[in-house]
Formats: sequence, C-alpha cells, structure tokens
Amino acid sequence: MTTARRDTYTPETLLSVAVRVFNERGYDGTSMEHLSKAAGISKSSIYHHVAGKEELLRRAVSRALDGLFAILDEPGAVRGRAVERVEYVTRRTVEVLIAELPYVTLLLRVRGNTATERWAMERRREFDHRVAELLGAAAAEGDLRSDVDIRLATRLLFGMINSLVEWYRPHPDQAERDQLAETVAHLAFDGLRKAR
Amino acid sequence: MTTARRDTYTPETLLSVAVRVFNERGYDGTSMEHLSKAAGISKSSIYHHVAGKEELLRRAVSRALDGLFAILDEPGAVRGRAVERVEYVTRRTVEVLIAELPYVTLLLRVRGNTATERWAMERRREFDHRVAELLGAAAAEGDLRSDVDIRLATRLLFGMINSLVEWYRPHPDQAERDQLAETVAHLAFDGLRKAR
Repeated sequence: MTTARRDTYTPETLLSVAVRVFNERGYDGTSMEHLSKAAGISKSSIYHHVAGKEELLRRAVSRALDGLFAILDEPGAVRGRAVERVEYVTRRTVEVLIAELPYVTLLLRVRGNTATERWAMERRREFDHRVAELLGAAAAEGDLRSDVDIRLATRLLFGMINSLVEWYRPHPDQAERDQLAETVAHLAFDGLRKAR
Repeated sequence: MTTARRDTYTPETLLSVAVRVFNERGYDGTSMEHLSKAAGISKSSIYHHVAGKEELLRRAVSRALDGLFAILDEPGAVRGRAVERVEYVTRRTVEVLIAELPYVTLLLRVRGNTATERWAMERRREFDHRVAELLGAAAAEGDLRSDVDIRLATRLLFGMINSLVEWYRPHPDQAERDQLAETVAHLAFDGLRKAR
C-alpha cells in the first residue's frame, strides 16, 4: 500500500495529509518527520513537491481563504439590501466552512509564530472586516436593531460560526448541511424567539 | 518582593497563579516546576497547600462550574415562562464567564487526559444539557420558532457565548459588561434584524 501511495502522490493528496497532521499536532508541533511518516513517503519525496512545511501551511490556509473571499464576489453578496447580503454571506460562510472543514479549522488555529501564520491571520481579519462593513451598511439602511453594537455583533457572529470547527462532524446528507447554514442565519438575524 | 509573596501566599493566590500558567502553557504542558517559578515559591511550599497540580485544576474548574450551576437556582432561572428563563440564563452565563474569565477559559480548554479533566467535561456537558432542556421547554410552550432544531441551537448558543474567552478582554466599565450580556441575549433570542 505504501508503494501504491508513493506512486500516486500528488501535491493535492500531500496537502490533505499535511492539514490533518497540522490539525492533530498543531502547526508548531509538526516536523517534516511527522509529515513523512503520516504520508508514508520519504522527506526527500516531500521536498520534491514543496519547499517545506511552511509552503504546505500557505497552500492549506490559502484554500480556506480563497473559499471565503470568493463568497464576497457572488451575486448574493453584491446585490440587494445590505441586510440580505450579509445574511447571504453568513449562510455561505457556514457552507464553505463545512465544505473545507480541515482547511478552515487550520486557518482558525494559526497563532502567528511565522510570517505565513501572520499573513493568514491578517487575511482572516480582513474577511471579518468586510463582513463588519456589510453589517454597518445594513445598520445604516435601517434594517438592523438600533441597539446593536456592530463590532460586538461581528465578533459574536463569527464566534458562533467558527465554533462549528470544534463540534461539527461532516455529514453526508446535503439537506442536513443546508439546514445548518439556514439555522445559523436564522438565529443570527431573526433570533430563536417566535416573532411577537 | 519574592520574600513578601512567600510570606503572604494563600491557597487563593496560588490558585490564580496556577490558572494563569495552565491557560498559557496548557494543563498538560505545565509542571510543578513551572508553577513554582511562576508563583515565586518552592515546590515544597506548593505541596504545603495542595497535593499536586491536579488538585489545583480541580479547584479552578470547580470555581467556574459552581458559578455556572448557581445560575440555574437563581429566581430568574426557575420562575416564569421557559423562554424568559433561558434568556436570563444566557445573560447570566455571559456575566459569570466575564467575572470568572480565567477559570471558565480553563474549563473550556480541558481535553480529558486526566480523571479531573474528564469530570470537568462531564459537568460542563451537564450544564449545556440543562440549558438545552430549558430551550426544549420554551419550544414546547410555543415561544420558539418552530423551525429551530434545539440541539443545534444549543450548540450555536454556547459556540457564541464560549467564543468570548478567545476575544473578550476584561473591561473595568460595568456598563460595558452589562451591554455584552444584553447583546448576546438579544442576538440569540431576537436576532440582529429589526422586527418587520
């Protein structure tokens, strides 16, 4: 089996192994030795694909960040009232988080010890900031409750969404995944209480 | 200064030092040596107060758990409609989390490698379960949106609340702290959107 893997390794499969090991051991706690063992290929074979573990980290968090930023260019995120746009972005963020779960998990756990980690944190803050701007626009259009502090609401919204990486387990049922995104959006924008 | 600390050490001050070190290094990564250095007292002085680091962990997470469970016996949590009670518990949970921030942070980070950690996780799940029951009662009384999945809503609610330990920084202003609890409760139960 090791031989078969050695023959068929691609940068893509190597990346998925690396992300799993990074999430298990932490990025700082992962050595090339760990990656080599987990992938079942030699360190020199890994160096054939990438310059080192930081390149694997950059590729992995880029996949998460590209998925998240792409949402902001989708029609639902750029047309219509800001409150509808931000609700759309919330729902899609949950969907991307689920679709790219190990990659977003890694993104949310980087701690800023290397240049790549700091870059990833900066890009992540930029995404949060874009969503905060949408919330601000929704407030300016009079569609949000007037007693809401936008900065606080943004943090709580992402606190709720990002908590998914801690407890969500991949579910094969597409309807269940759709329901999760709907529930997050409903809870955040309409609340749990039945309209009075 | 070390002398002064040596003279005045109490189990309470030792606990607060231990919790800080546990949160910084992780419980598993903390040795009695680390605690001794951080407290500025000898290991034998620490053993004068406690049997070991697991006793410090038990005391620390007990403080967080006692604070949380006490909420459930308060008048606001036992009288009135379930939806009002669960909203009250949500607000008070945020207040306890802020008042006991390092202790609750530690509670949320234990991983289950020791008997004390597993006990703490079990008690924490029990608290979550009690809140889920309250949400279920509110749904049964017809006060929650009918499309809400209680299990999912409980997880998202705690995801939002527990995210506070990651980004909240203690604020001396009581009004600001009150506002945080209000905002969490409003967001969860009434949503961000202005009533239509």
